[in-house]
Amino acid sequence: MQIVKTVSGMRRLAREWRRAGARVGLVPTMGSLHAGHLSLARRARRLAGPRGKVVVSIYVNPTQFAPTEDFARYPRDLKRDARLCRAAGVDAVFAPRDEEMYPRDGAEAFSTYVVEETLSRTMEGVSRPTHFRGVATVVTKLFHIVQPDLAVFGAKDFQQAAIVRRMVRDLNIPVRLVVAPTFREPDGLAMSSRNQYLRGAQRQEALALWRSLQQARAAVGRARQPLPATRLKASLKRLIEREPSARVDYIEFFDPGTLTPVAMVTRGVRLALAVFIGKTRLIDNTLL
Amino acid sequence: MQIVKTVSGMRRLAREWRRAGARVGLVPTMGSLHAGHLSLARRARRLAGPRGKVVVSIYVNPTQFAPTEDFARYPRDLKRDARLCRAAGVDAVFAPRDEEMYPRDGAEAFSTYVVEETLSRTMEGVSRPTHFRGVATVVTKLFHIVQPDLAVFGAKDFQQAAIVRRMVRDLNIPVRLVVAPTFREPDGLAMSSRNQYLRGAQRQEALALWRSLQQARAAVGRARQPLPATRLKASLKRLIEREPSARVDYIEFFDPGTLTPVAMVTRGVRLALAVFIGKTRLIDNTLL
Repeated sequence: MQIVKTVSGMRRLAREWRRAGARVGLVPTMGSLHAGHLSLARRARRLAGPRGKVVVSIYVNPTQFAPTEDFARYPRDLKRDARLCRAAGVDAVFAPRDEEMYPRDGAEAFSTYVVEETLSRTMEGVSRPTHFRGVATVVTKLFHIVQPDLAVFGAKDFQQAAIVRRMVRDLNIPVRLVVAPTFREPDGLAMSSRNQYLRGAQRQEALALWRSLQQARAAVGRARQPLPATRLKASLKRLIEREPSARVDYIEFFDPGTLTPVAMVTRGVRLALAVFIGKTRLIDNTLL
Repeated sequence: MQIVKTVSGMRRLAREWRRAGARVGLVPTMGSLHAGHLSLARRARRLAGPRGKVVVSIYVNPTQFAPTEDFARYPRDLKRDARLCRAAGVDAVFAPRDEEMYPRDGAEAFSTYVVEETLSRTMEGVSRPTHFRGVATVVTKLFHIVQPDLAVFGAKDFQQAAIVRRMVRDLNIPVRLVVAPTFREPDGLAMSSRNQYLRGAQRQEALALWRSLQQARAAVGRARQPLPATRLKASLKRLIEREPSARVDYIEFFDPGTLTPVAMVTRGVRLALAVFIGKTRLIDNTLL
């Protein structure tokens, strides 16, 4: 397995692979890998086939963090990540430095962004106004550098996957997108690099996200008619905020195709939520 | 020569070419081709080489026109354009319909744009605030659909070429950009599809653009010291607006690399201007 730190090096490797006719799969990550990420890498490996190549990009992308967010303290451990990737049969880890990705030279500093303007307007886009612009921009860059045949994203970031899918369609990017299911801890907590921020009792309190998804599914499962979203939101919020360090950022019921919020909740609607456990912001979502 | 009207058709053709190892050159145009465009196609042909392929895209891109501009009446004549391309040795004309490029289906309508935020702030970007967003978006789409090895742009749209170059660098788009010189009529008028809007005496009056470029070059050529940009602008404006139907939109002296306006004009500075001749807006530029 190779660890590539420059754009030109990654480009060169990808070009060799393409010339040799290898199918290339990309898994974009911010590192601090957990079993969820590794499941995406294995999925990419299966889809790329035995002669194919799998790239895991490891890059804590500054443009998707607001100045108030956890960019500086986001966990980074390239050695550990590389070991995990090697064990998972990854062919290359692409781990560029910021200066490689975002040139800063004065009047010639980086100045081009990709913006999605419809699906980005709700949920994470409200709480984190420049987040998806940063995501769309860095994903576009990674697609151009690696030129993968396919890319695998996790369903935990459901809105992100929907926005990348829209971007790929709108900009005609020649890549196949695959969205793989959320990986969970045995007790239901969605795997996230940010789970390691949780201290003491917070780990238990964080289960409120999973419990609220379960409760919503049960409610919709036994309902004979559509349920008002406002009422369901209020009851989930009560459930979650029973935990002393939990504070709901948003709870949203929406059409999974368009991300448009719905007033009445039925099966087929998707539920997403963001919850602060202390200072740690966690997200999760499910199909109802 | 093939005329391709769908994104999927163009993609397929480009894929065949790539598989056969052909180098592909793209010349993006809005059609209504003149000798300037054809010189770009010939340049692409030379650069692509004898086994290479040349695509001319012909698409009047709605997103780069403001509602007040000439999108509806912009001249369109695909038959004539195709004939000229065939004669120029072009391999394919890509002429998609709007529905191909910008899906409109309700909540799933097109919603992703590419924005350049530094070089777009001056000159054309001031007069036409959403213009470069439209240009950057459609050029990105064309790059993804055709996947050219190289693309040829004309120097008449100097700011556009600079923005596309910045975008290619920032987003790591794997394409080589070539900027070819402005083609001029024998009397100096820069070739433009919009020249056909000029009526009667306007054609003569439009020479004011060329004369003002010449005058600025002469002034800088004989100057022993840097000339104040404000004074030069005023004198060019007087020269141009001597013509009864001419009205200056902007005159700018700037650093060709960063497009930053300069206060003092010397050799090596670039001059660009936009002038209304009646209702027709023409642009031109030169290195001093």
